[in-house]
Amino acid sequence: MMNTTRTKKYKILFQPSGVRLEVEEGENLLEAARNGGVSVQTICGGHATCGKCAMVIQEGDFPKDNIHSSLKHLSPVSESEKKYWEKQRNSILARGEDPESYRLSCQAQVYGDLVVMIPERSRGVQQIIRKDVQERAVEILPIMRKIYVELDEPSLANPRGDWERLKDALLAADEKTRGPQDIALDAKLLTIDYTALKSLQKIIREGKWRVTATIRGGVEVLRVEPGYAENLLGMAVDIGTTTIVAYLCDLYTGEVISAASMMNPQVAYGEDVMSRISYTNSKEGGLQTLQNAVINALDKLARQVCGKAHLKSDQVVEMVVVGNSVMLHLFLGLNPQALGAAPYVPAMHTSLEIKARDLGLRAINSAAYIYTLPMIASFVGADAMGVILAEAPYEQDEYWLIIDVGTNAELVLGNRKRMIVTSTPTGPAFEGAQIKYGMRAAKGAIERVRIDPHTLTPSFKVIGSDAWSDENTGEMPLASGICGTGIIDAVAELYRTGIVRSDGRFANVDSPNLREKEAGIEYILAEENQTTFGEAIPITQDDIRQIQLAKAPLYVAAKYLLNASGVKRPERVLLAGGFGSIIDPLKAMLLGMVPDMPLDRVYGVGNSAGEGARMALLNRDLRRLAMDLMGRIEFIELPVQPEFQERFMLALNFPHMVDPYPHLEDIAPPREVDPVAISLFGENVRETHG
Amino acid sequence: MMNTTRTKKYKILFQPSGVRLEVEEGENLLEAARNGGVSVQTICGGHATCGKCAMVIQEGDFPKDNIHSSLKHLSPVSESEKKYWEKQRNSILARGEDPESYRLSCQAQVYGDLVVMIPERSRGVQQIIRKDVQERAVEILPIMRKIYVELDEPSLANPRGDWERLKDALLAADEKTRGPQDIALDAKLLTIDYTALKSLQKIIREGKWRVTATIRGGVEVLRVEPGYAENLLGMAVDIGTTTIVAYLCDLYTGEVISAASMMNPQVAYGEDVMSRISYTNSKEGGLQTLQNAVINALDKLARQVCGKAHLKSDQVVEMVVVGNSVMLHLFLGLNPQALGAAPYVPAMHTSLEIKARDLGLRAINSAAYIYTLPMIASFVGADAMGVILAEAPYEQDEYWLIIDVGTNAELVLGNRKRMIVTSTPTGPAFEGAQIKYGMRAAKGAIERVRIDPHTLTPSFKVIGSDAWSDENTGEMPLASGICGTGIIDAVAELYRTGIVRSDGRFANVDSPNLREKEAGIEYILAEENQTTFGEAIPITQDDIRQIQLAKAPLYVAAKYLLNASGVKRPERVLLAGGFGSIIDPLKAMLLGMVPDMPLDRVYGVGNSAGEGARMALLNRDLRRLAMDLMGRIEFIELPVQPEFQERFMLALNFPHMVDPYPHLEDIAPPREVDPVAISLFGENVRETHG
Repeated sequence: MMNTTRTKKYKILFQPSGVRLEVEEGENLLEAARNGGVSVQTICGGHATCGKCAMVIQEGDFPKDNIHSSLKHLSPVSESEKKYWEKQRNSILARGEDPESYRLSCQAQVYGDLVVMIPERSRGVQQIIRKDVQERAVEILPIMRKIYVELDEPSLANPRGDWERLKDALLAADEKTRGPQDIALDAKLLTIDYTALKSLQKIIREGKWRVTATIRGGVEVLRVEPGYAENLLGMAVDIGTTTIVAYLCDLYTGEVISAASMMNPQVAYGEDVMSRISYTNSKEGGLQTLQNAVINALDKLARQVCGKAHLKSDQVVEMVVVGNSVMLHLFLGLNPQALGAAPYVPAMHTSLEIKARDLGLRAINSAAYIYTLPMIASFVGADAMGVILAEAPYEQDEYWLIIDVGTNAELVLGNRKRMIVTSTPTGPAFEGAQIKYGMRAAKGAIERVRIDPHTLTPSFKVIGSDAWSDENTGEMPLASGICGTGIIDAVAELYRTGIVRSDGRFANVDSPNLREKEAGIEYILAEENQTTFGEAIPITQDDIRQIQLAKAPLYVAAKYLLNASGVKRPERVLLAGGFGSIIDPLKAMLLGMVPDMPLDRVYGVGNSAGEGARMALLNRDLRRLAMDLMGRIEFIELPVQPEFQERFMLALNFPHMVDPYPHLEDIAPPREVDPVAISLFGENVRETHG
Repeated sequence: MMNTTRTKKYKILFQPSGVRLEVEEGENLLEAARNGGVSVQTICGGHATCGKCAMVIQEGDFPKDNIHSSLKHLSPVSESEKKYWEKQRNSILARGEDPESYRLSCQAQVYGDLVVMIPERSRGVQQIIRKDVQERAVEILPIMRKIYVELDEPSLANPRGDWERLKDALLAADEKTRGPQDIALDAKLLTIDYTALKSLQKIIREGKWRVTATIRGGVEVLRVEPGYAENLLGMAVDIGTTTIVAYLCDLYTGEVISAASMMNPQVAYGEDVMSRISYTNSKEGGLQTLQNAVINALDKLARQVCGKAHLKSDQVVEMVVVGNSVMLHLFLGLNPQALGAAPYVPAMHTSLEIKARDLGLRAINSAAYIYTLPMIASFVGADAMGVILAEAPYEQDEYWLIIDVGTNAELVLGNRKRMIVTSTPTGPAFEGAQIKYGMRAAKGAIERVRIDPHTLTPSFKVIGSDAWSDENTGEMPLASGICGTGIIDAVAELYRTGIVRSDGRFANVDSPNLREKEAGIEYILAEENQTTFGEAIPITQDDIRQIQLAKAPLYVAAKYLLNASGVKRPERVLLAGGFGSIIDPLKAMLLGMVPDMPLDRVYGVGNSAGEGARMALLNRDLRRLAMDLMGRIEFIELPVQPEFQERFMLALNFPHMVDPYPHLEDIAPPREVDPVAISLFGENVRETHG
């Protein structure tokens, strides 16, 4: 006799992938999807808790509860699933969707043909799109995952240790909860952080034998929370010489939950990297003082970004930090002394992973790792690596030039075949320092300047006001000083209008704002009645010189990179860094800060270093890539290049213009030697490029 | 034309292995040996610094210096090699050897036939032989190795980071310095401990670019020292409820350099494990108090053992710790509360590796790992695992019974096929507590007792004196109390001489030392004039009862193990632990503490737990074995065994003797039920084994 009980089979179409499967009657919908290669991520592994496996049943119906359980296309909604959906109801309605069509696939058995839509958040590997110049996607591949488990309670017959109990449960749940972006657990290596172990017993009992574990790299349990817990938080930090920026990120969605920034408290011990190096040398315990300062700042920022989102900062289980070489050394408590003199040797180039508690960080989870991006060269630090990760010149066929402008500037020229970097100090002039009336970019700082080419009189705009000083808006913006972009604007305008010559000196022109003082000629930018302190704000001859000294190395560095790569002109110039991204590309070119380019090929890209840190936080593969790049990127040491000094002298000049509103394509390279520069740098400077 | 320059070849015979090699003229002797499979260990990798590759040239000669360099069988002794041998001269002479025949093989090229003797210390894997009952060898396979490297100084052309410089040099030296016992470096995983990185720059420069690195497991640089540094130190620690013992070990030779012990300072917070558990429960911060106490004790011991050897304690780079489950929990700062009540669940069973700084240990190297042996069961801790490693029943065909006697006793019965363990509290009577005149084993404590079977009068010996109290040596030893072995001796003698009956009660016999007091009958052990405080020291009826309550569970536990394994009688009984090893096996059997055995099959094996810790310190394979055993060893929970209470009651009795000086083979198991025990343990105790 033939066996007459044949298993029925049903068809399921999964959207949006279009995968079609044939499954046996009674098979679990989640299992069916997984077995058929449709990737679905979960945390709870089938306990109707995390909701990550939610699907929308587009065709096919099912009983809404157990009471009306005559089977249709899916098994009925259980009480626990019902509870879950009641909680979600409002947010589903808010999205304009039908809450009745949702099912937790882990709770549903198949009893008929179906068309199922997998919402984006359940789809496994996700991407976030940067809303920026380049619109690049970041794949979310966190080094971390969470698994929710329900443990057997111990008994005399089963008195295993808490850790063994948890470990076995995690290993058992690994496959069921693993999305394609997740790292598989390593049964042999899986261990638990010591501080996590210390609180394990309490937490397991608090959660009544239900806990959620955070596992890093498939090998280390970093944190255990009672019950079901979904948040997976990381922090990306950019430690600038002047400013520290922190982003709190959701490691599942890639979303920046909140951000905060503060002045680097080390500024009190020295404005630039060199003065901080001297502080560590000259002062007993100086290194510790500087490390403590930045560690405390990070603790503060962690509490701030979490506080904004009403989250506890000890939920942060991973931190990625970038910064220039000296900032990174000071953060890690490594002596930066060897970076202060030739041959400029760092303690290490490699990326590091250090426990939060080893660094003395107290706000974030004690078991969290602090990951630092690798450094490319002595003065091309982890911040430059962050910029490279964020802008990805290594994915381009074209040559891109990236200039990260700060107190120290790093320049990267490259494409997918080759990358060359260099770095140069620019001095603090771009940040308003060493300018007579310079100030930081704060309320009242002149940030924009226009000079009328006919009357040669100025107007300006200050931070905190939308009005120009020559507009009759009734509002009279008062200036307190000039910030970095203001001074650039002013000098560029002075040069464009012919008030200042190519060599940086005031020209013999007739402007009501040019005044001769004892110390030399000045150009009055704001009159006495336009300032907060009742005195006029001038641009002095020395201010202009400071800008020349700051912009010249940028130009020279770019030229050496272009020479070294045999490229005449990059396809794009990206200006990165807080300052680099707000500077007007036209002005930058007018002053000869960057090589001549069509204006529409110059972009301000914002805090790329921080962006790179965030990307390395979200995507573990980028960390491997960074280490790979570290070994591949070529480095040019500027001061040892042939004719460096001569070229530097030449670059002090502003480029010749063919007309006062130049088509920038036609700007010639600077040619004249500045006699002031000669007096600054010695008589041995010759004019070799006539 | 034929090529007439043919390379000459020479023969070398290596002793004691007998390996014969044919090598080309000019080949390096060390390389030749390695290539031919003769294992030689070095640290410096060919810099004539470590001397580990020394060989004795038994046949063949060589120029003693470069001046007389007409080649003979080996290249001449270089100046640096000469300096090395001059320093070693005295110790070679002291061994009665000819210093002129020694060569550093890394410095010698072959130019003739040779017979070469490789001294034991150069031979790679070494063993140390335990001078003990079993004479077992421990293979020296440390988890650590040292490599000496000479680094290129950095230059502008080579400005790599210090760590990259060191890492590359270590990887390059790996093969050259690797002995067969050494773990190969893992180029991909090799990293450096954070605190080691912090001091790296200073140490590299202090050592003038010559440093010695200590590498753990082939993946982590734990320590870097300036110049050449040879010491490789580890500590083995046994944390007992009452006493902590520490051994300082040379990880290359396996030698115990020094040892020290101290009272566990936790004793101030509770005598036994249960009272310590209650202390952590009842007292806010109690757990931290107890952890701090033991951590401070370990710091003290580390300084002591290193101080004795004139070594700095931060040279200790590895520590292995054993202890019972509660001691281990308290040491690790893990709450032992769940161990205090059924189902007696520990935080974990597994072995752990924790950084010294995470535990708050300050004396040893901050980067050192503390390795704890795994625990077998809730009350069969890492100390029992240490005992098993040390005594190795898993290598036996015979069944061995190991009893680790302490405040808590662990029993192991097993052979290579099967191992069963159990544990039982014994109470503190064996350590002199809860005995009316009990005291710790200190000066003045009665430690031996003899009772004359005819006069029924006692004599005793106290710690600190060699004389018996009834000897007329002129010296009159005064007693301050009775320690554990003293009370055992006394009760055994009282029973043997018929003063005490099988049920533990004083018999109706005529002894001048038996006196009736209000509280009951006593036996005077020391008269008023024989004690330090002018009062007599008696053994009371209650003292005897305490010994009965302490010895009964040992007997019962052993019986259950034998039952469970289907073994009638073990081939050996090993008494481990400080107390277990000084107790007289005859007395132990007389009182029924251990199963009946031929006396010559009962051994005291000393502090096996500490010995096991030391072995795990020296041999990394034993750590893997311990984890493997953890999963294999069976555990019996005594209180849930059938008829446990009844058997316990029966075991309170002393065994029937066939004559007062028994052939121990014939001792029958105890049979009578003690009415006192019934009143202690309830009326439901029946005499089921008549």
